[in-house]
Amino acid sequence: MSVASREWQLIARPVGEPKPTDFRLLRAEVADPGPGQILVRNTWLSVDPYMRGRMNDVPSYIPPFQLNEAMTGGAVGVVVAAGDGSAIPVGATVSHFEGWREYALLDAAKTQVLDTSKVPAQAFLGVLGITGLTAYVGLTEIAPVKEGDVVFVSGAAGAVGSVAGQIAKKLGASKVIGSAGGPQKVKRLTEHYGFDAAIDYREGGLRTQLKQAAPDGIDVYFDNVGGDTLDAALTRMNLFGRIALCGAISVYNEESMPAGPPHLTLAIGKSLTLRGFTIGHHMKAFPEYIGKASGWLAEGSLRTDETVVDGIEEALNAFFGVMSGANTGKMLVRLPEA
Amino acid sequence: MSVASREWQLIARPVGEPKPTDFRLLRAEVADPGPGQILVRNTWLSVDPYMRGRMNDVPSYIPPFQLNEAMTGGAVGVVVAAGDGSAIPVGATVSHFEGWREYALLDAAKTQVLDTSKVPAQAFLGVLGITGLTAYVGLTEIAPVKEGDVVFVSGAAGAVGSVAGQIAKKLGASKVIGSAGGPQKVKRLTEHYGFDAAIDYREGGLRTQLKQAAPDGIDVYFDNVGGDTLDAALTRMNLFGRIALCGAISVYNEESMPAGPPHLTLAIGKSLTLRGFTIGHHMKAFPEYIGKASGWLAEGSLRTDETVVDGIEEALNAFFGVMSGANTGKMLVRLPEA
Repeated sequence: MSVASREWQLIARPVGEPKPTDFRLLRAEVADPGPGQILVRNTWLSVDPYMRGRMNDVPSYIPPFQLNEAMTGGAVGVVVAAGDGSAIPVGATVSHFEGWREYALLDAAKTQVLDTSKVPAQAFLGVLGITGLTAYVGLTEIAPVKEGDVVFVSGAAGAVGSVAGQIAKKLGASKVIGSAGGPQKVKRLTEHYGFDAAIDYREGGLRTQLKQAAPDGIDVYFDNVGGDTLDAALTRMNLFGRIALCGAISVYNEESMPAGPPHLTLAIGKSLTLRGFTIGHHMKAFPEYIGKASGWLAEGSLRTDETVVDGIEEALNAFFGVMSGANTGKMLVRLPEA
Repeated sequence: MSVASREWQLIARPVGEPKPTDFRLLRAEVADPGPGQILVRNTWLSVDPYMRGRMNDVPSYIPPFQLNEAMTGGAVGVVVAAGDGSAIPVGATVSHFEGWREYALLDAAKTQVLDTSKVPAQAFLGVLGITGLTAYVGLTEIAPVKEGDVVFVSGAAGAVGSVAGQIAKKLGASKVIGSAGGPQKVKRLTEHYGFDAAIDYREGGLRTQLKQAAPDGIDVYFDNVGGDTLDAALTRMNLFGRIALCGAISVYNEESMPAGPPHLTLAIGKSLTLRGFTIGHHMKAFPEYIGKASGWLAEGSLRTDETVVDGIEEALNAFFGVMSGANTGKMLVRLPEA
């Protein structure tokens, strides 16, 4: 009594910008859960820029997507069937890593049961998931914010960046500056997320804009973007500045390796520390973060946005959207509840 | 009863590669020492790549040279006259920062008296000076070497690099790889300084050469060179690798800011730390280092080279030489003892 499930597969490795023809949406049969297994109907799929990297067949911190197999990614869903010995009952909401599909057959032990009594399930893919944890770890462990620091966050209207900006304030930053693309996002940074200043990278003149926004320089830079933005930040960093290298969305789609930041050499004289990280190595900070973030959400001091598209057939467009900056906050695909 | 002293002055700010006409050697009168002052006849001048940066009129960790004034830099010399209340007697050997000239009038309190009973005076400009300290701090505080690490040092035949390679071994590195320019220097790395492998950057194919020399990747990279060498190292760094950004001699003479390392983006997935430093912020490590280095020198386990030119009139050529890699080990200018 298997179930039919549509799933997205990568069928050709993109060169440069991914094309629709590099993917296909396929119907597959998913078997009944065996012992210790659960069958989950996915209700929310996470869509993230790092997925671009997994489309290349190169060794990295996370294995590449396999051609002609369902892609994977963060997801939440509802348990619709449970095999013998599964500790998770039918009806439970769980998070797992078998996204990009309607139904997932999973080892119950590899999923987390979610308490959705206070927050909606999809929050566990965003602010209460590795997205929020990434922002927190970046500003506490990787490029620690100290009281009075000036902090700059790029990709600041994105899922990670919007949380990072608010956490920087909570950690004592005297000023938090964000960059984003377009006047609407820039406005949202200051009016909704509480950034002190915001700049629009699409207007160009990044160095000048940053100089105006941070006349006393930058102590901590949370980099989601790489490229020109990283270079501009290097020119404004203060002595002993810290840079968390979290993402480089500006270069993910480049066909050949683009040039690096010319001003990296300034790191010598300014005694800068640049530190790359991926969140998988920092999961031990999750309980501490969840405790804090839950409190912030409950008191209303941490604001988040979602950009939602509906239906498995729209998941690919959601991915194209997150790569081009169509989202504000977390990009999500919503699937029918039943 | 002043003394005549020749001194080098910067008279034009170089654009790109410095030209002889950017400098002049001038005769100046140096006054007798006043209270608390000493007059020093310099016997050794330190010649270092970082001096190129001081020729530009840009804010940096150390002020730029002033036009039409004597340049400065590390030097050692003999006290030939002492003013009232100077604690340093005539005949003492001292180190100070008023190089690029024959005689220096100094506050006695701003000089260090040197014990030359066991090592020659010029060692205090090299292995027992900030040159050696730079190598030590880079591999203990900035990019700490752990037992078993594979370490790569660029500019490895230079004053800092040659010491860094040997210190890496002492700190427990399982393999130390050096890069230098030309077959003679490359040979010296393995035969004299004890590097396990050496590559010649002038032969090109840096990435391939590094891959062959470090098939298991690199854990710590001590960067004196920047540019293509830094980029090649980034491609070979292991997870959690550390890079000490000490110098970037390959780009100091560039007229416009050259492109940065394209593979910097790899720092994210590999969780790399790149840390720039200048030695002035780490002087507290000097006593610890001097203690260790003196022991290594006494037991003959730390080898150094000097490249010596004679006469104040040759100081400028020595600087051009250090920029083009004419030196092995420390580049020094020797002045007459009397």
